Amino acid sequence: MSPPDSKLLELIAPVQDGVERMRAVLSEDLGVESKAVADMTAHIARFRGKQLRGALVLLVGQATENTSDEHPEVASIVELIHLATLVHDDVLDGAKVRRRVACVNQRWDNQVAVLLGDFLYARAFGRSTQLSSRLCSEVLARTTQRICAAEIDQAASRYEFEMPQERYEAIAGAKTASLYAAACELGARYPEGREDIGAEMRRLGWDIGLAFQIIDDCLDVVADGEVVGKDVGNDIQDGKVTLPVLHIYRSASEELRGRIRDVYMQQGLDKRAERLREVCDLEPGVEYALARARELVDGAMLRLRSLPASPARTAMENLAQYVLQRRW
Amino acid sequence: MSPPDSKLLELIAPVQDGVERMRAVLSEDLGVESKAVADMTAHIARFRGKQLRGALVLLVGQATENTSDEHPEVASIVELIHLATLVHDDVLDGAKVRRRVACVNQRWDNQVAVLLGDFLYARAFGRSTQLSSRLCSEVLARTTQRICAAEIDQAASRYEFEMPQERYEAIAGAKTASLYAAACELGARYPEGREDIGAEMRRLGWDIGLAFQIIDDCLDVVADGEVVGKDVGNDIQDGKVTLPVLHIYRSASEELRGRIRDVYMQQGLDKRAERLREVCDLEPGVEYALARARELVDGAMLRLRSLPASPARTAMENLAQYVLQRRW
Repeated sequence: MSPPDSKLLELIAPVQDGVERMRAVLSEDLGVESKAVADMTAHIARFRGKQLRGALVLLVGQATENTSDEHPEVASIVELIHLATLVHDDVLDGAKVRRRVACVNQRWDNQVAVLLGDFLYARAFGRSTQLSSRLCSEVLARTTQRICAAEIDQAASRYEFEMPQERYEAIAGAKTASLYAAACELGARYPEGREDIGAEMRRLGWDIGLAFQIIDDCLDVVADGEVVGKDVGNDIQDGKVTLPVLHIYRSASEELRGRIRDVYMQQGLDKRAERLREVCDLEPGVEYALARARELVDGAMLRLRSLPASPARTAMENLAQYVLQRRW
Repeated sequence: MSPPDSKLLELIAPVQDGVERMRAVLSEDLGVESKAVADMTAHIARFRGKQLRGALVLLVGQATENTSDEHPEVASIVELIHLATLVHDDVLDGAKVRRRVACVNQRWDNQVAVLLGDFLYARAFGRSTQLSSRLCSEVLARTTQRICAAEIDQAASRYEFEMPQERYEAIAGAKTASLYAAACELGARYPEGREDIGAEMRRLGWDIGLAFQIIDDCLDVVADGEVVGKDVGNDIQDGKVTLPVLHIYRSASEELRGRIRDVYMQQGLDKRAERLREVCDLEPGVEYALARARELVDGAMLRLRSLPASPARTAMENLAQYVLQRRW
């Protein structure tokens, strides 16, 4: 197990039993009769990743004194939705490696990756219809619509070098933070009622998720692919202009702007992240983006402070900080 | 309006009010805030097609004396699921035209088509969570899993020229007939109970849907693309060996088998359906497949006869026959 995982395990210790049950349920959920499908679900189980979203369902449940027998199941359904989005994201990005494991679209092909993602979404919704309350189905169906619409908006906003920061955040938030928000809302509300604390926790999840996405966007332009365990420079290749670049572009000379656009748009260019670092100093952009992520996490910390002190609350505080420190 | 549509309108006259409500709900369901998404949903509304599956929800409801205010909504959700599968199918098939309208993957690109399909699935599940009963969510989530698993199985069975007919039918059925089966089950059961009549109508829908798919597979090898309003020869291009070809292959000489395989597998070959018709007489295979489709429809007719006589029952009888006659 790699160090980040063991650090994370430590963080989520207060809900360890729940996390283990979540993982057991998830393994079951990935089990299927069809051999062709089973081969694939066994493969993607290998990039199960940090399972932060599932852990948040359990931590928020405990921190808001709202635990139920079904929380681990809700957590596993949130993770299934996340897995489905990952599989389709890899198709969309033409990615080759995720967590040092070949992506489904590489190991099989894009067609099958589309189908597997569809299958995982359907499986997640199917599981949610078996729960005693409909809240999980409702929240996750709404969230999934939002995620997909945001990804379409993002695709429609390629090469928008002058996109306002609000729009960047709205899209990045809907794309990524909305599932964090849903996880926290479900943790606080499932199986029913508790709208006020649900809304509060939803915003908390949004802030943490948006910070997470901003860090991700920074890593895509500056990280070393070897260290993060997946391809970098995808956003540039794909025409996604993210916060660190938007910031640099804002104050760049016309000449530098032209060179930045070239790195994004020139046909057949290789290693675009490296090229971008050659044409401009990205450091101030990354600093600016990190400061924004820090601001979001500070907001989350404030909300957390309104909850009664508990090991789960402490874990969430650490988790919020951990999002800022992640380098992979 | 083209002749097939007016013929169909006549067939579904007993549930015309419901169909109109279904269409109104569907238009609403396709309305979204995001401009990028709205552009696309407006586009796909143009290939809304025959809406057979939605009509079946309403017809079976009426024929089994199980009508509710929510039946049109259930019907529109079934159609949304169908639209989602169409959008993803077009990505998978690399199709260019559907109902004489450019496919989403052509008008935009594959990435966006994947996202739009995801959005439509999520929208469908989202709508189903708003209904008074969970039955629709349950049945459709189960059905969607089945459809996706079957498509994966189909992809894993490419170029299987000696596939047993049972396996062909299991895959073709799960891929296509299961949504017909779900539509009929929901028509008979929604909002609750009525398991026996539900199971009976489910089988009825399965038979009609499988017949529909068999006809579709025949059209793909023998039809004229101009007449059917979409590309033909896709199955061959994609390595899907369907019933008419399986039948010919079964009794073909080794030499002919080799030539058939060549048409499927030779790199860069153009117009494979035409090529296939050049190397062998497909007529006996198509006759065999049509006879099987007829047998399935006969089974469906028998089941229908167990229902009390009504305009809706008559409409379904006509509809079952119509499936056999369709040439587009």
